[in-house]
Amino acid sequence: MMSSIALVIPDRDLTPLVAALQQRLPGVSIQQWPEIKQPERVEFAVVWKQPAGSLKGFPALKAIQSYGAGVDSILRDPHLPAVPLSRIVDPKLAAAMIDYLDTVVAMYRLRLDLFAQQQRLGQWRPKGRRKLKQLCVLGLGELGKAVATHFAAAGFQVQGWARTPKAWTDVTTYSGEEGFAAAAADADLVICLLPLTAATEGYLNAQRLAQLKPGAILINVARGAIVDDRALLAALDQEQLAAACLDVFQQEPLPAEHPFWQHPKVTVTPHISAVTNIETAADQIAENYRRSQAVQPLLHPVVLEQGY
Amino acid sequence: MMSSIALVIPDRDLTPLVAALQQRLPGVSIQQWPEIKQPERVEFAVVWKQPAGSLKGFPALKAIQSYGAGVDSILRDPHLPAVPLSRIVDPKLAAAMIDYLDTVVAMYRLRLDLFAQQQRLGQWRPKGRRKLKQLCVLGLGELGKAVATHFAAAGFQVQGWARTPKAWTDVTTYSGEEGFAAAAADADLVICLLPLTAATEGYLNAQRLAQLKPGAILINVARGAIVDDRALLAALDQEQLAAACLDVFQQEPLPAEHPFWQHPKVTVTPHISAVTNIETAADQIAENYRRSQAVQPLLHPVVLEQGY
Ligand SMILES: NC(=O)c1ccc[n+]([C@@H]2O[C@H](COP(=O)([O-])OP(=O)(O)OC[C@H]3O[C@@H](n4cnc5c(N)ncnc54)[C@H](OP(=O)(O)O)[C@@H]3O)[C@@H](O)[C@H]2O)c1
Ligand SMILES: NC(=O)c1ccc[n+]([C@@H]2O[C@H](COP(=O)([O-])OP(=O)(O)OC[C@H]3O[C@@H](n4cnc5c(N)ncnc54)[C@H](OP(=O)(O)O)[C@@H]3O)[C@@H](O)[C@H]2O)c1
Repeated sequence: MMSSIALVIPDRDLTPLVAALQQRLPGVSIQQWPEIKQPERVEFAVVWKQPAGSLKGFPALKAIQSYGAGVDSILRDPHLPAVPLSRIVDPKLAAAMIDYLDTVVAMYRLRLDLFAQQQRLGQWRPKGRRKLKQLCVLGLGELGKAVATHFAAAGFQVQGWARTPKAWTDVTTYSGEEGFAAAAADADLVICLLPLTAATEGYLNAQRLAQLKPGAILINVARGAIVDDRALLAALDQEQLAAACLDVFQQEPLPAEHPFWQHPKVTVTPHISAVTNIETAADQIAENYRRSQAVQPLLHPVVLEQGY
Repeated sequence: MMSSIALVIPDRDLTPLVAALQQRLPGVSIQQWPEIKQPERVEFAVVWKQPAGSLKGFPALKAIQSYGAGVDSILRDPHLPAVPLSRIVDPKLAAAMIDYLDTVVAMYRLRLDLFAQQQRLGQWRPKGRRKLKQLCVLGLGELGKAVATHFAAAGFQVQGWARTPKAWTDVTTYSGEEGFAAAAADADLVICLLPLTAATEGYLNAQRLAQLKPGAILINVARGAIVDDRALLAALDQEQLAAACLDVFQQEPLPAEHPFWQHPKVTVTPHISAVTNIETAADQIAENYRRSQAVQPLLHPVVLEQGY
């Protein structure tokens, strides 16, 4: 009796993913939650923002594969089965993230944010480029490393910060609690690429935002809950920060009444910086399915105790 | 008796330019209009948006030097003395223009214009990058050539359009009236870098905008009067054009009541794309002053009959 794969990815048209997986795994049954036939046959689950408890009904489950790079929305589930968890690692994801950040940094350099504010007010106030030299990347994993290296090659002075020390040459790196201020305090731009874990939730609070250089710009492309929204708004209003570009939010879609929408110093993008590529994801899912069947270690495993 | 130089550049603090010129031309008297002592001694004028007739009072004038790349605001003067006219040509100006255009093109590719509109309305509507492949550059002079070559090297299919034919390899070029549609009709992005002359004034009118690809984006960094404002607004409202980014306007500062300010598909920047660099300009002014004294041909002369 063949095992099957369950896709537990609510509110999304999964037709292209199903097709990409069927092509790679002919004969394997690909089931879409909540319509799972014979849940006792499900041995592998591909998961994104699953409802709590939705994986409990798969007694034969051997492995869980995140459909994205992050796993915070998966680990949040108190009924998560105790099986290995893996995630997508895709050079195309890093390339998309770099493209997004390049665009946003160039936009701030040219002051398009300021000119857009002035446009709304009908104000003509020519001003030269912002001088942006130092850039800090918080989180130096698959994405943060690619981003830090890219901006260093582009001529920025780049500082990086991670949980554990690195020995890199093009980027000055720091780690641990005391490393945060050293990495971030002189940066014109601070880019957050931390995973959301128990340790990083609310990390960018009033105290830490106060440690940034006055007039710095914050770009959060990681997870909304790493930032304390109220502290960020206060820092913008007190001109501790010049601007913030946010692609991720504590609640998504960002609720209609949230002050970020109308704040003149906030740029909101609807979580589009780096979207999982179906073809690469399907390759990794198929490979991890085969590995789980062969009882081999999964590609890109998550260390559950660390939360990332 | 030493000759003197008149700076006829109203409404600007000229202290840095005067200092840069005095350093290069010790002993030469640099006079600032309207306070010109001994106007009969002025043999060279550096000019930008001069009031009509303001150069009439210099009987010994030998040459006029534009303080920018364009000369339309100088030639507009019906009392312009009939002496050689030259302009600034500066590789740094082209580099600044490329930087501006790179930023704006990236912004449109990521749809930051659309997300900004949605932000004002509190709308969360994720959407992938715009596919921007074909790019048309109108005007292939000092700036247009550098811009076209740059985008061709960056991977765009680039068409160019000028008055006279070119024999280039990386950019497909067209000329003359019938060449316009051939150059522009398939472009996702149309960048205007024409000079403002009798032939180009109002050139981008309803008829020509209708020849562009539906959904194209227009970027005007040349002169406002090349575009028919009403025709542009109509083309945006009828979705013939997806967006317009305008750095130049028929009247600058753009009047408070102008519909461009509040139009959701228009990005207004206050003529900041490429600003004359004082050091390079001072070098060229000093050199042309010496040449005019020695009765030698000027650097970067303007062909008066052509208007550019
Ligand atoms: N906006 C989007 O479209 C989008 C797309 C993809 C991913 N993301 C987000 O980006 C995040 C990062 O992705 P990734 O693939 O680069 O993650 P990753 O490879 O797991 O790297 C995480 C990095 O963060 C560091 N880190 C973790 N906890 C920390 C702490 N408490 N203090 C300091 N540093 C800490 C890690 O340090 P060590 O190196 O010491 O382990 C590591 O360098 C994802 O978790 C996801 O939330 C967003
Ligand atoms: N926004 C800013 O900050 C800024 C800064 C600098 C300059 N500008 C503007 O940019 C303009 C272009 O500068 P540039 O230095 O590149 O000028 P340029 O070297 O004089 O080149 C002008 C180009 O336009 C073409 N052209 C002129 N009349 C034409 C017509 N009737 N039909 C088709 N093509 C025509 C010319 O064709 P040929 O090659 O056949 O002669 C030439 O290729 C300036 O005039 C200025 O107004 C704006």
